[in-house]
Amino acid sequence: MTIEAAERARGEAGVTIDMIEAAAERLRGEALVSPLLSSPALDRIAGRRVLVKAECLQETGSFKLRGGWAALSAMAPEARAQGVIAVSSGNHAQGVARAAARFGVPAVIVMPSDAPRGKIEATRAWGAEIVPYDRATGDRDALVAALAAERGLTLVRPFDDPQVIAGQGTVGLELAAQAAAAGVERAEVLIPCGGGGLTAGVALALAARAPGLTARPVEPEGFDDTARSLAAGRIVSNAARAGSICDAILTPQPGALTFPIMARLCGPGLAVGEDAALRAMAAAFAHLRLVLEPGGAVALAAALFDPQAASGDTVIAIASGGNVGAGTFRMALDRAGDAP
Amino acid sequence: MTIEAAERARGEAGVTIDMIEAAAERLRGEALVSPLLSSPALDRIAGRRVLVKAECLQETGSFKLRGGWAALSAMAPEARAQGVIAVSSGNHAQGVARAAARFGVPAVIVMPSDAPRGKIEATRAWGAEIVPYDRATGDRDALVAALAAERGLTLVRPFDDPQVIAGQGTVGLELAAQAAAAGVERAEVLIPCGGGGLTAGVALALAARAPGLTARPVEPEGFDDTARSLAAGRIVSNAARAGSICDAILTPQPGALTFPIMARLCGPGLAVGEDAALRAMAAAFAHLRLVLEPGGAVALAAALFDPQAASGDTVIAIASGGNVGAGTFRMALDRAGDAP
Repeated sequence: MTIEAAERARGEAGVTIDMIEAAAERLRGEALVSPLLSSPALDRIAGRRVLVKAECLQETGSFKLRGGWAALSAMAPEARAQGVIAVSSGNHAQGVARAAARFGVPAVIVMPSDAPRGKIEATRAWGAEIVPYDRATGDRDALVAALAAERGLTLVRPFDDPQVIAGQGTVGLELAAQAAAAGVERAEVLIPCGGGGLTAGVALALAARAPGLTARPVEPEGFDDTARSLAAGRIVSNAARAGSICDAILTPQPGALTFPIMARLCGPGLAVGEDAALRAMAAAFAHLRLVLEPGGAVALAAALFDPQAASGDTVIAIASGGNVGAGTFRMALDRAGDAP
Repeated sequence: MTIEAAERARGEAGVTIDMIEAAAERLRGEALVSPLLSSPALDRIAGRRVLVKAECLQETGSFKLRGGWAALSAMAPEARAQGVIAVSSGNHAQGVARAAARFGVPAVIVMPSDAPRGKIEATRAWGAEIVPYDRATGDRDALVAALAAERGLTLVRPFDDPQVIAGQGTVGLELAAQAAAAGVERAEVLIPCGGGGLTAGVALALAARAPGLTARPVEPEGFDDTARSLAAGRIVSNAARAGSICDAILTPQPGALTFPIMARLCGPGLAVGEDAALRAMAAAFAHLRLVLEPGGAVALAAALFDPQAASGDTVIAIASGGNVGAGTFRMALDRAGDAP
């Protein structure tokens, strides 16, 4: 068996629809059933009906709350009580920190020192201990291993963990029901994609509960490792590691667990430029009254501005996060016009 | 019987919980069951738990969609087919225009020529005919009467209409259920208040379905006609007619139908300054990822910054609208700091 066949077997075996359903049960009352929003103004821009699943409304500002809770709530109580550790530039950090706070257990979050200040502060506000590292010079993995060993912490991976994928997949369960209620049987579902936890989880849920809905990952231009991996049929990496305003979804390559799921279930990946992401943020501001961060807006950007993103009369975009500072948001408002 | 006693009798007789329940039935699938959001950061600012009902997420950007639909869906089909007319600076305009569009009937909206440009454009985008008038020199009532007579249009009042009050009251029905699910039995419910349609409707629904929740109107400083009317026990007017960024809730005085309901059921009114409204918009941006307009943020402003706004461990604020231009929103972002 090749390495990739082994990964595929592990991935396929690792996450089932039953696990996603069980995660949804554990998430009841913890995660918001995020609304599926629409606006005729967006429909006019896209030339088709646009439905937007507003995951930015979760209490931590992104869908990562789901995976964090799914992971911690599935841990053995003794291990959980020792505490957890995660590596994240912000959204996974807050998801794990919130889950740890609600279980009353320690959380250590290793964050790049250049992570957005607002995300660092919000993570600390959940009671987590922040350990900064330097992206350029720090040995992150050694740091995490040492901390975990020293304190008995369990690592919660941002995407390559079956429970995390199952937690993010609950977005897809909700979407299957909401699309059916809206009379949508066939559509592309566009998903902001970093390591692929949300994309893989949603793809699994849709395949089981709404097979007419097809998941497609959307990435920033220059960081389209998943799109290129899907096209190549094997995992390939990005050349660049930083240098995009879409900080939430800059991952070197798709995960060993997430990639085989995406390869089996997803349509081709899409890539959007920074200007399109900012214009999508402006459109969400004006027409949905939602605050999106650049990485959380890439799927909406593809839905609005890329005619190749969908083929039918409806397209669904997941607005995955809204943790953005005022400075970056002003860049989006510059594209919204100046009406009072 | 005094005039006010007569008004009270008319108001009390005019809107019942059964009418609100019936409006909710007609609104099913038309209005979003808006989420009740929270953030520990807001709790820290307020010093108590803050729950925010996000009516800005309605398709027209405000709760007015409910009243507009409730009114048109209750009309005799023959009258409705002739068309409707409304006077509004923007949010009621969009609510009526959307309802008319979905019924396929004409809508004429009389708008002050200095209404926010975005609101005029959004109303026109729903297919309504916009008739501008000059606030200073125009005889608005004569204009409306002439248009209505000439074209057989039915006037849909912005608040002093039993069906409109019933429609806005559906916010209160949802809130009663959501508060119960969140374990909240006693709390002040702070409500942005112009003519009092939302406040009166919510107060009626809460009195019937969640009597531990008390409605309190919130207005801009200088335009606190409802607070002063409640204190005086009779309808009094504002001295000023314009000159606040809270354009959505500048009404000369409470309505003949809404005032007796509010006088019977509401707690004392509150007034907040423009700076507090802008800071509440900044807080909603950073911690709820919601776009609020100044008039839609006054209740959140009172919840966050006025220690007198609530007495218990929980306060609920209705975020009533989010139709705001980039220019005004930048003023709010100036109060949010400059983190990237």
